[in-house]
Amino acid sequence: MSIEDQTTIPSEQFDPHASSLNGSVDPAVLDELFAIRGSIDNFDATLVYLLAERFKATQRVGYLKARHQLPASDPNREKAQIERLRRLAIEAHLDPVFAEKFLNFIISEVIHHHQVISEEHAQEPDARA
Amino acid sequence: MSIEDQTTIPSEQFDPHASSLNGSVDPAVLDELFAIRGSIDNFDATLVYLLAERFKATQRVGYLKARHQLPASDPNREKAQIERLRRLAIEAHLDPVFAEKFLNFIISEVIHHHQVISEEHAQEPDARA
Repeated sequence: MSIEDQTTIPSEQFDPHASSLNGSVDPAVLDELFAIRGSIDNFDATLVYLLAERFKATQRVGYLKARHQLPASDPNREKAQIERLRRLAIEAHLDPVFAEKFLNFIISEVIHHHQVISEEHAQEPDARA
Repeated sequence: MSIEDQTTIPSEQFDPHASSLNGSVDPAVLDELFAIRGSIDNFDATLVYLLAERFKATQRVGYLKARHQLPASDPNREKAQIERLRRLAIEAHLDPVFAEKFLNFIISEVIHHHQVISEEHAQEPDARA
């Protein structure tokens, strides 16, 4: 995306200090809260870009599967992924139950994408070309 | 985590070629599928470590809120976060509806953590020390 495109998105409208906390909170506490939230905002931007890249990869899988009439879901693959993510979560001190819920959340979106690609592909006259 | 700790986790049991696809698939197609899946596996490990770091930050927010009796949720903050993430998603070519669902999924987990911290804190005899 060019610098010109970026300027059309009013990212500067984001208020990193937006809050429903009323004025009775100690300013030092608010400062600490806003400092941590600044890090959370950075992690979130990283997550969005990483997820976008992950979906680009699963999109490629979707087209490959559609082109070769392979099923949208792959239970053995999903099982292996979930087991691995649980182990990685333990290493990273992340709740493995949450990691599993998270992967299931992503996979259900991916399978939905694959089904859309598969239906689009089936409607093309030269789908099996 | 030390190298010794890492060797106790049987990460080598993960089979990156685990699949329910039967033997009738063209080996060249499988090779392409496994190559893309290798990237997906790398993105997933990065996601797990990033999420772990994000939860460390929200955990700090949770303790700060518990210490100062601030509410677990902050609707104006959440609204600003969701609007920002939708904009970032558009920049990253990620479905903004998915990005919003994703943030809501994470936030509901975070609020649950905050409530647990708040309850633990309330049970401590020196909670307001």
